[in-house]
This record gives sequence, structure tokens and C-alpha cells, in this order.
Amino acid sequence: MVALNKKSSLLCMKSENIFWSEGQITREQRWARNGHQGCVVWLTGLSGSGKSTLSRGLECELFARNFQAVVLDGDNLRHGLNSNLGFAPEDRSENIRRASEVGALLASAGHVAIIALISPYRQDRCAARDVARRTGCPFVEVFVDAPLAVCEERDPKHLYRKARAGELRGFTGIDAPYEAPENAEIHVRTGELGIEASLALIVENLLPRLAIS
Amino acid sequence: MVALNKKSSLLCMKSENIFWSEGQITREQRWARNGHQGCVVWLTGLSGSGKSTLSRGLECELFARNFQAVVLDGDNLRHGLNSNLGFAPEDRSENIRRASEVGALLASAGHVAIIALISPYRQDRCAARDVARRTGCPFVEVFVDAPLAVCEERDPKHLYRKARAGELRGFTGIDAPYEAPENAEIHVRTGELGIEASLALIVENLLPRLAIS
Repeated sequence: MVALNKKSSLLCMKSENIFWSEGQITREQRWARNGHQGCVVWLTGLSGSGKSTLSRGLECELFARNFQAVVLDGDNLRHGLNSNLGFAPEDRSENIRRASEVGALLASAGHVAIIALISPYRQDRCAARDVARRTGCPFVEVFVDAPLAVCEERDPKHLYRKARAGELRGFTGIDAPYEAPENAEIHVRTGELGIEASLALIVENLLPRLAIS
Repeated sequence: MVALNKKSSLLCMKSENIFWSEGQITREQRWARNGHQGCVVWLTGLSGSGKSTLSRGLECELFARNFQAVVLDGDNLRHGLNSNLGFAPEDRSENIRRASEVGALLASAGHVAIIALISPYRQDRCAARDVARRTGCPFVEVFVDAPLAVCEERDPKHLYRKARAGELRGFTGIDAPYEAPENAEIHVRTGELGIEASLALIVENLLPRLAIS
């Protein structure tokens, strides 16, 4: 049996009644065994820009290369962890906050956590970056950049049509703003590049960031 | 480059405006590569019964056996994902619900997710089991069973002392109930067994459940 400390070290933090239980397996040990760093890869962009497709493609690519990788898709989260949230501004922020926290947990546990969320506000994306930093995990922002006209033309979920018809309120790009990233680590113009080329660009830029230093 | 579907399959679920993005890497593929099933291992018991210590020990044991394993500690979650929750009954339920969802995400992604939470109500633990089932992951409930008198004597966080002094309200075992599991998959009497023996019992009962069938 593995040697076991008799008592986890308890460090009192924040509240005097909530403690911090320190694990004996470090993030670095997990990463070393997996052969790559954990990481939060955050895909932001308009609805229809290609986030879900690229995130699934990236997951596939990484899995084939023997990486631990998993997608947290914004819509999927809304069926589970975030099923009690709506689309009011504070709910959208909380939606992003929870995704950030889970992404950081997954990255600490060894995964490349690929998060696909419109996440239209810079402030929310900065907060997500801070959560990853707090847990010692790299954060890579990917701006999935397609012009509104292109996204609206694609309209894979028919949401733009509904928004234009006034059936959806506060829809990003129509009657709610999208604040484009200014310093995203990876910028992929999906209005010009096809899916395969976009994915290749992301993979090429991401892999060196996952190497164990 | 890996072959890539041009478009993730979108299955409309629940809300007509929230879609489900299906991944191309299945849970079974992840498990096969890891050499074991993902699983939610849920440790329930009174404060001071040994949940955190045993969960950390289990994580260590599994890591040493080359399993992907990670602890979600109730107190730690309250510093991150659940930092906006208090201790009112509905907040405690939401605390457990979120832990269940994250546990199921981790198990789907290939991990043995070890969750250590007092989780005093049967209803909440049943709901946690349902979440794991919904995602097709095994759920193993571990009753970490020490008599109240023993836990109060240990009182590692000095919380029983505070609860007896009236400084903490709604403290499980003192002025809030603990509903003991009736059909836990693993029952470990930590009032009688030491840490090493308790851990050995859990590992012995857990390993066969993680085998790929």
C-alpha cells in the first residue's frame, strides 16, 4: 500500500469554518504522467462562428495524439451544471464563472479542458483567465472570428432568424454586444479559413503551450 | 490530421434554443485508453468521520496504480465553484448538485472522481446517483461511519465545539440530522478501523467496480 499521511494538512483559508484539504498528488505529477500540461483552452466568438465544431475537432486531434482532452460545451453545460441559469446578464456571468471553475479543476486534474462559450464580455473572459491562473494552470484564449454577416448566413441553430424577428432578446451580435478579444493567444478567422485549416492553425499554436517545461 | 466531421451533430433537447453538441470521442474510448472505467466515488459521513483523509488516501492509492483519480473536496469546492453558496438548506442542496454534476463530467472524461461531502440527506445523495447514471457513469457510495461521540472527540476543525456553544447553527449531528445510507456500496466503520485498514477496505471493494467490462 502507498504510504499515507495520517491526516491531510488542513490550512484555514477565507472562512474560519471552511478549510482547505491539500492533496498529496500534485498537478505537476499528474501532468508528468500524462506527458503534457493541463490547460484551459477558451474558445470565444459569435454564435455560428465555429466554436463547437472546432472544439470537437480539437478534442479529437488531441485524443489521437494521446492527450487527455475534454470539451465543456456551453450548451451542454446548460443541460447539467448550469441548468438552473437563464440568460439575464448575471446568469450569463455565473454560467461563465462556473465553466471557468470546472475548466480549472479539469486542467489541474491533467486535462486540456476545451471550453466553447460565446462569452461576449471581456470582463468575464478575464475572470476566467484569473481562475486558471489562481490554480496554476495555463489559459489559452482562442478568438473564433467570423464576421456577423457570415455567422448570420450560416445560422445553424436558426437563432439569428429568431433574434431578428424579435423572438429572442439580448442575442449577441444583434441586440447585445460582442467585445472582441484584444490579446487572444490564438486568433483564427473562420470566415476566411475552412474548418480543417482553422483546426490546423489552433493545433499548431496550442501544442507548444502544452509541453512540460 | 484526424478525420473530422464537418459539423458536430446537433440534437435539440429540452429548450428549443439550447442544443446538444455530441462529441466524437466516447466515454468508452477514454476509459479503454485509461485502462479503467470512470466512476463517481461518493464519501458521505459526519464531520470528523474521516472523509477527507480517506479520499486523499484513495486518490494516492489509485494514482500509484496508474489510475486517473481526483478528489473533489467539499470544503475546497466552497473556495471556488461553490464560493457563492452558504449553508441554508437550499444552498447545501445546490452545493451537492454542483458537485454531482462536476463529478459526472470528470467520470465521463475518464476520472475516478472522489467526492467527499457530509451530504446528510438521502434525497441529495440519490439525486447525485441519478446524475451519474444519466451520464452513464458508475456511482459508488461510501458510508464513512463513525459514531457522533467519536467524531466530536476528534473534532479536527473545532466545529463541534462551536456548534455545542451555539456559535454554529444547523450543524450536522448536533442540531441538524444525518440520514445514514441504507444501501451504500461500501460501508467503512472508521470508529473501529484505523485509517490504513479503512482505506484498504475501500480499495479492495472499489477496484473490481472500476474494471472495464
